[in-house]
Amino acid sequence: MNTTPTRTDGPPATSLQDIIAHAKEYGFVFPSSEIYDGLQAVYDYGQNGVELKNNLKTLWWKAMTQLHDNRDGGPVVGIDASIFMHPLTWKASGHVDSFNDPMIDNRDSKKRYRADQLLELKAEEYANAGDADRAQALLNEMARLLGENDLDGVRNLIIAEGIKCPVSGTDNWTEVRQFNLMFSTQVGSLAEDASLIYLRPETAQGIFVNFLNVQKTGRMKIPFGIAQIGKAFRNEIVARQFTFRMREFEQMEMQFFVRPGTEMEWYERWRDTRMKFHQALGLPAEKLKFHVHEKLAHYANAAVDIEYQFPFGFREMEGIHSRTDFDLKSHQELSRKKQQYFDNDVDPATGKPYGNYIPYVVETSVGADRLFLAVFCNAFTKETVGEGESTPGDKQKERTYLKLHPALAPIKAAVFPLVRKDGLPEKAEQIVKLLRSEFRVIMEERDAIGKRYTRQDLIGTPFCIAVDYQTIEDDTVTIRYRDTTEQIRVPISELKARIGQEVSMERLLEQM
Amino acid sequence: MNTTPTRTDGPPATSLQDIIAHAKEYGFVFPSSEIYDGLQAVYDYGQNGVELKNNLKTLWWKAMTQLHDNRDGGPVVGIDASIFMHPLTWKASGHVDSFNDPMIDNRDSKKRYRADQLLELKAEEYANAGDADRAQALLNEMARLLGENDLDGVRNLIIAEGIKCPVSGTDNWTEVRQFNLMFSTQVGSLAEDASLIYLRPETAQGIFVNFLNVQKTGRMKIPFGIAQIGKAFRNEIVARQFTFRMREFEQMEMQFFVRPGTEMEWYERWRDTRMKFHQALGLPAEKLKFHVHEKLAHYANAAVDIEYQFPFGFREMEGIHSRTDFDLKSHQELSRKKQQYFDNDVDPATGKPYGNYIPYVVETSVGADRLFLAVFCNAFTKETVGEGESTPGDKQKERTYLKLHPALAPIKAAVFPLVRKDGLPEKAEQIVKLLRSEFRVIMEERDAIGKRYTRQDLIGTPFCIAVDYQTIEDDTVTIRYRDTTEQIRVPISELKARIGQEVSMERLLEQM
Repeated sequence: MNTTPTRTDGPPATSLQDIIAHAKEYGFVFPSSEIYDGLQAVYDYGQNGVELKNNLKTLWWKAMTQLHDNRDGGPVVGIDASIFMHPLTWKASGHVDSFNDPMIDNRDSKKRYRADQLLELKAEEYANAGDADRAQALLNEMARLLGENDLDGVRNLIIAEGIKCPVSGTDNWTEVRQFNLMFSTQVGSLAEDASLIYLRPETAQGIFVNFLNVQKTGRMKIPFGIAQIGKAFRNEIVARQFTFRMREFEQMEMQFFVRPGTEMEWYERWRDTRMKFHQALGLPAEKLKFHVHEKLAHYANAAVDIEYQFPFGFREMEGIHSRTDFDLKSHQELSRKKQQYFDNDVDPATGKPYGNYIPYVVETSVGADRLFLAVFCNAFTKETVGEGESTPGDKQKERTYLKLHPALAPIKAAVFPLVRKDGLPEKAEQIVKLLRSEFRVIMEERDAIGKRYTRQDLIGTPFCIAVDYQTIEDDTVTIRYRDTTEQIRVPISELKARIGQEVSMERLLEQM
Repeated sequence: MNTTPTRTDGPPATSLQDIIAHAKEYGFVFPSSEIYDGLQAVYDYGQNGVELKNNLKTLWWKAMTQLHDNRDGGPVVGIDASIFMHPLTWKASGHVDSFNDPMIDNRDSKKRYRADQLLELKAEEYANAGDADRAQALLNEMARLLGENDLDGVRNLIIAEGIKCPVSGTDNWTEVRQFNLMFSTQVGSLAEDASLIYLRPETAQGIFVNFLNVQKTGRMKIPFGIAQIGKAFRNEIVARQFTFRMREFEQMEMQFFVRPGTEMEWYERWRDTRMKFHQALGLPAEKLKFHVHEKLAHYANAAVDIEYQFPFGFREMEGIHSRTDFDLKSHQELSRKKQQYFDNDVDPATGKPYGNYIPYVVETSVGADRLFLAVFCNAFTKETVGEGESTPGDKQKERTYLKLHPALAPIKAAVFPLVRKDGLPEKAEQIVKLLRSEFRVIMEERDAIGKRYTRQDLIGTPFCIAVDYQTIEDDTVTIRYRDTTEQIRVPISELKARIGQEVSMERLLEQM
């Protein structure tokens, strides 16, 4: 049984459909409210998905709030701000006025589209037909019109380019309108005191409005950061690509407050720190890349994305932005509450303290759902294995498993009594009880043992523990390793330490 | 310096105002969007609050999903369903039709009240004046009218009882109307495909609509449970008592699916398991009590609350409800998708398998914010201490600290170099780096050492580590204990194990 698998061909290409199917079938991601035929662009995490996602969130949180201090990169502390915020927050941030998508309807099909996406599709057609210049010219013209908010111009461009509705086939287009992506609701009762509030479209503002609360009550000295994990909501018109773009999603954001003029140094530092994080999780360097923004948002003076190679191509997973003092300054103006910090460090140029300033901010913002999807896609492994190296090709079969880092796996160990009698289940139960306060361990008594291994492979359980008749005699068990299918015999007394070390988040943190 | 504090008088009564002030001043809870003068009944967790709350959530999660299995109480797995759900979910659950509060307005003051609360206040007046019978009669009459949805009757009762608006002093009341407590929003764009959805008012339904997904993909055998932590939203008209009743709050809910007829056994078992959990966190038995519901909700056949003695009295912290098959049956009817389970265990009465049924459900539902508030209130300690037992009363002073279980404390250890020179800060930094991947540790160089201890007491840090000149010589430090203020000298090499064991969640889980 000491089988070592040999990979006999390259890994088959994985499609997003494979990923979606596996995620559903093995309890990682379900469509939301599926018994009512679902809710577009909203998903639920199942019994295995929630564990993987929680492990990612915990690791990010610990990496942020435990690994930095005032002598080593500047401390980072957390907060948990509410989803509901005062509506002026979104006035200050610019979301009320400009968090819009340009929408256009086809009068015949009654279908709605994003005007910019129709034009981008057209440009792609030109590019595919070999006319890269025409494609670029179209994109430039679109950018110019949107930059000037010339919505009539955008509509005229769509008609001039001969773009038709794919459903009706006509160009019977309405005017282009800006559509705000924030969800709103009424708080308070229907009397005169009710007011319109928004579901936050990003978690960052919860950090900015609490900047002084945290700085003062925590006696924080600049540079320092504030980290937050939480839900955000965007009324995406065209949501797609599974959990990549959802209407309800979770962000892991950190705003790092620095002295103006030092922001580029911190920007570069955080860019590298964050890349290291993703690689420590097991995402391979060749599937990750930096994408530097050429066109910057109004609040930024530098921006880079960390992209991961999803089945649908390289896409943004995390953004690192140098946001200047845009947000704190806007809040200061609108709230009329000073958002300043007094820096008593001495400026060598003047020999005096730096004094009062509005700090600059470097942001790191990763989509928890995108990181989940990246890690899940990367772990999904199909291998053709030969049964034993001595007879290659003899009994080949395909094996699918999730090659998750043990610290990320939903279940760390599964205990299998070989048979359901002769005291083996009771022995297995003792082992479960020995381990369960340390990490998540399950027991499975059903099916043949091979089938039980296969099932744990499919959900990424790194260790299976078989309890057999020898166990009753000498208190040893076999550990079977997910990635190699190798089995070794060990005393029960060693299980906690052996597996505990492999699944340890602390050990993973030490590599970050 | 080997000071042992002696409590020289009883603990002063703690008011909710003390709690709110301490929570704000030391970074536990801030009013939401405070720079815009706040948002009623919404709060943010600060840098220390978020750690305490996360620790409570993690412990609940582990206690639920790690400590039970098919041979020991039935396994519990987690999910994380979205806040947005298909609107029919809330039709099935009864929330669309009956999640209402009866509201009444005073035409002169324009103030709005809950009609039932006005009447309850009146009954309280009678009771305080010694007329318990009249108080009870009024409450009974109110319950009858509300039960029959006789809103005119409720209004007439308010007028007949002579209840006046406390602001205007008049009884110029509008009619009574039912006000639905769910927040709603529009999903999709403004075209014909937009639809009204709700922010979930409870997390339970996310579990029910996923029951079969989890049961089938996880091959779960009844009895088993599904646990979930997440935000829920209620448009409370009269929100109050700090974080006890908020418009945005977090629930930790578990639905346990059982064979019909066995629910009372499981109800009793979970009631006791949950009480044990709260006591293991350090909440004293005398501040906890069961409150059995006499009047049951339409879906329940047994219900009990675990109440904690908050500064404003005993109030519900957790509910354990036997919910029958109400929810799954409603979803089956509305979705026309069978919510059945095939039980192949043999019924001893018939000798045949139990076969198909809709499971019964026992729910445990605890408010994460309420548990946080209970733990925070319980930890808040003011003591008058004498400086050394030999001379009682000699140099008395008051000490305030948070007596949090070390596994719950936001910061586990604070490292203090005695002075900012001679290599002491560098030595302290080495210690921080040694410990930081294991638990949350900070370094503080500012202020006199006594002031540093005081500050850590106020945020509940259980261990302070002082680095002095002797440390440079022999690699030992002093550990100072928060609760006793006792100090002992230990080698640096022992710190990780000593403190690690005290702050270990695993050790706490073993007591649950």
